[in-house]
Amino acid sequence: MFFPPRAFVHSTLARSASATRTTAVCLVACRRSRLFTSSAARADRALVYAENGDPAKVLTVLTYPTISAPPPNSVNVKFLLAPINPADINVIEGVYPSKPTKTDALAIAGLGSEGKPVFVGGNEGVALVTAVGSGVKDLRVNDLVVMTKPQTGTWSTSKNVAITDVVKIPDAEQLSEVQCATITVNPATAYNMLTNFVELHEGDWVIQNGANSAVGQAVIQIAASRGLKTINLVRNRDNLDQLKNSLHSLGATQVLTYDELAEKSAREKVKSWTQGKQISLGLNCVGGKETTLMAKFLGSNAHLVSYGAMSKQPLSLPTSLFIFKNLTAHGFWQTQWYNEKSPAEREILMGNIVNLMVQKKLKTPEHEVVTVEAEDSDDQATEKMRAVMSKLAEGRFGKKVLLKIEDTE
Amino acid sequence: MFFPPRAFVHSTLARSASATRTTAVCLVACRRSRLFTSSAARADRALVYAENGDPAKVLTVLTYPTISAPPPNSVNVKFLLAPINPADINVIEGVYPSKPTKTDALAIAGLGSEGKPVFVGGNEGVALVTAVGSGVKDLRVNDLVVMTKPQTGTWSTSKNVAITDVVKIPDAEQLSEVQCATITVNPATAYNMLTNFVELHEGDWVIQNGANSAVGQAVIQIAASRGLKTINLVRNRDNLDQLKNSLHSLGATQVLTYDELAEKSAREKVKSWTQGKQISLGLNCVGGKETTLMAKFLGSNAHLVSYGAMSKQPLSLPTSLFIFKNLTAHGFWQTQWYNEKSPAEREILMGNIVNLMVQKKLKTPEHEVVTVEAEDSDDQATEKMRAVMSKLAEGRFGKKVLLKIEDTE
Repeated sequence: MFFPPRAFVHSTLARSASATRTTAVCLVACRRSRLFTSSAARADRALVYAENGDPAKVLTVLTYPTISAPPPNSVNVKFLLAPINPADINVIEGVYPSKPTKTDALAIAGLGSEGKPVFVGGNEGVALVTAVGSGVKDLRVNDLVVMTKPQTGTWSTSKNVAITDVVKIPDAEQLSEVQCATITVNPATAYNMLTNFVELHEGDWVIQNGANSAVGQAVIQIAASRGLKTINLVRNRDNLDQLKNSLHSLGATQVLTYDELAEKSAREKVKSWTQGKQISLGLNCVGGKETTLMAKFLGSNAHLVSYGAMSKQPLSLPTSLFIFKNLTAHGFWQTQWYNEKSPAEREILMGNIVNLMVQKKLKTPEHEVVTVEAEDSDDQATEKMRAVMSKLAEGRFGKKVLLKIEDTE
Repeated sequence: MFFPPRAFVHSTLARSASATRTTAVCLVACRRSRLFTSSAARADRALVYAENGDPAKVLTVLTYPTISAPPPNSVNVKFLLAPINPADINVIEGVYPSKPTKTDALAIAGLGSEGKPVFVGGNEGVALVTAVGSGVKDLRVNDLVVMTKPQTGTWSTSKNVAITDVVKIPDAEQLSEVQCATITVNPATAYNMLTNFVELHEGDWVIQNGANSAVGQAVIQIAASRGLKTINLVRNRDNLDQLKNSLHSLGATQVLTYDELAEKSAREKVKSWTQGKQISLGLNCVGGKETTLMAKFLGSNAHLVSYGAMSKQPLSLPTSLFIFKNLTAHGFWQTQWYNEKSPAEREILMGNIVNLMVQKKLKTPEHEVVTVEAEDSDDQATEKMRAVMSKLAEGRFGKKVLLKIEDTE
């Protein structure tokens, strides 16, 4: 695989960008615009990078011609909306274990021999099926799908994908576009962690830290839908009451700060809530001393499942918890789950999550959509997206950020 | 349960000690002496304590009259030899989660109303069946048995035990008394850790720290008997080559110090040994940074089983190992295993370990026997045993210490 020198990539982009500028038409994205009608050759766009590095420096918006008709057992899709998840940043930086493959599809699609393979960003997102290859039975044009193959490159418009790498969203018409775009990672992680490690019954207790994270909020809601009780740990902050109210409104049974959990009275407090029932599942996305503290509230034979390390501190636990309380510590990685499971199992998971969304038991996460507008040149769009990445790196959004790339036709 | 004041206990002991002194006869313990022949009333002795504390201060040798005939479904046993394990010290200190029950049997047995309940020390040991209650089918007088109920109080001579709390040692005549006395804790722990967490096949690799511990040595031997390869980690020391040779002679495939494992070249070294095969099981009795280091040598989907924390440092692991390498961390506690398993399962375990011993695949551990001699008064014996406890606390034995209480008849 060849890594093109930076200068080369930029000159290529500059050229294609100027071509785009002359044809750009602004389209306002809306639910109705989902419907795909075949048209003459269109230009597509993607957020790509040729080398790992700071997303605010290496990400580039690239225009490429429309892709060819789908080969057998594949479909062409058009991404409508794709989250920019924290892990996506790590992938671009090259520090995430899930490595995308460089695609030469963009080069093949018409950039000529100068068009060297690049990485296309994005792991999650909702797409519209725009063309169906021969042999495809279960998908039709205008179906909405999500990717179950990691690192598919969802920060793009048109793309050809194997049918084994996508799942059709059931009852998609009952969901918002944001819900469709955010099914596969956060709610799936929450659902699986609540299901795969401990057999929980109505009235059982779960404790989690980072409870205000996207996964944390999904945990609260999915647990509540099953009649499970949750103790939710969050950092202290100025608007703590507001946050507590917000988590309670999602279904949180109890919300505590790490400081409150560290107080001497916490043990009695938790005991009175649980009425002495042992807490058998702990979910951790923080690590460090906050997790050490949380683990001490777990009962005998409990399971502690880690899916993140926001504190950047290791998971540090007294050995006695393992030996004498028979604690088991696991990790959970939704990407690995998809790798290991059959298409049928993935569909069941999607179905379960969509069902919760349709029943309003899993709400649309707070979000903000950033748009690559049709009238922006690739250079302008690149500048805009790099600014978004800088803002993300500084943690200045405070909500889920999703990317919409408008059609240029 | 009443805790007698210290002074009271001592006066009781002093009295019974003087009674003993007049009848004490020195018996030399030997294999032949195992055979039990019913005799007239004998005095028995035990190492007891009335309150938790420093064993060198609270342990007391107490003489008590021979126990009564066994009730139905129980047997009377006479302990021949009992280890003084590190955990026994923690039990006496009151810092171990496995709490013995105070026994009033010694009081009942003839000490009169002044004889208040005391704890009898000792968890492991080999005993001879001396009398059989009605309804007992599988045990006979002169059978050798081990205790599978924790904290039975093996630092005593005669004792009545329920048949569900003991297992007969098969082929005991082929084993040394020390082997019989040390079956239930260390080899059982090693055996179960190598069996219950990962399905290992001949040629698979296991890594362990604290490899020179009693369990570590059993792991080396049991692994070798199954054709498993071991990487064994030990502390640096003056006589390192001697230790390495000694572990190799037990069957260790590789022996490294923690410092050697921390060297840059270690990864390549381990890779060449394992020929790229992933290490799927790690055994830990150390904790702290030595274990963090060891865990990084484990492969994907590996299991790390902790059974001790000699460094007194917590188990601290990068969360990424859990999430991206799917590490699972467990604890193992043989006491809990016995609690959960049926008598049939316990017998199978004993049979497997004895089989290894009979086949010379599991050697008698290096050891030293300390003896409560028949001619010692209780006061003299108390002084002697407290000195042993001090020496143990200072780590001045460096090998397994076993207690023999000679007959006083």
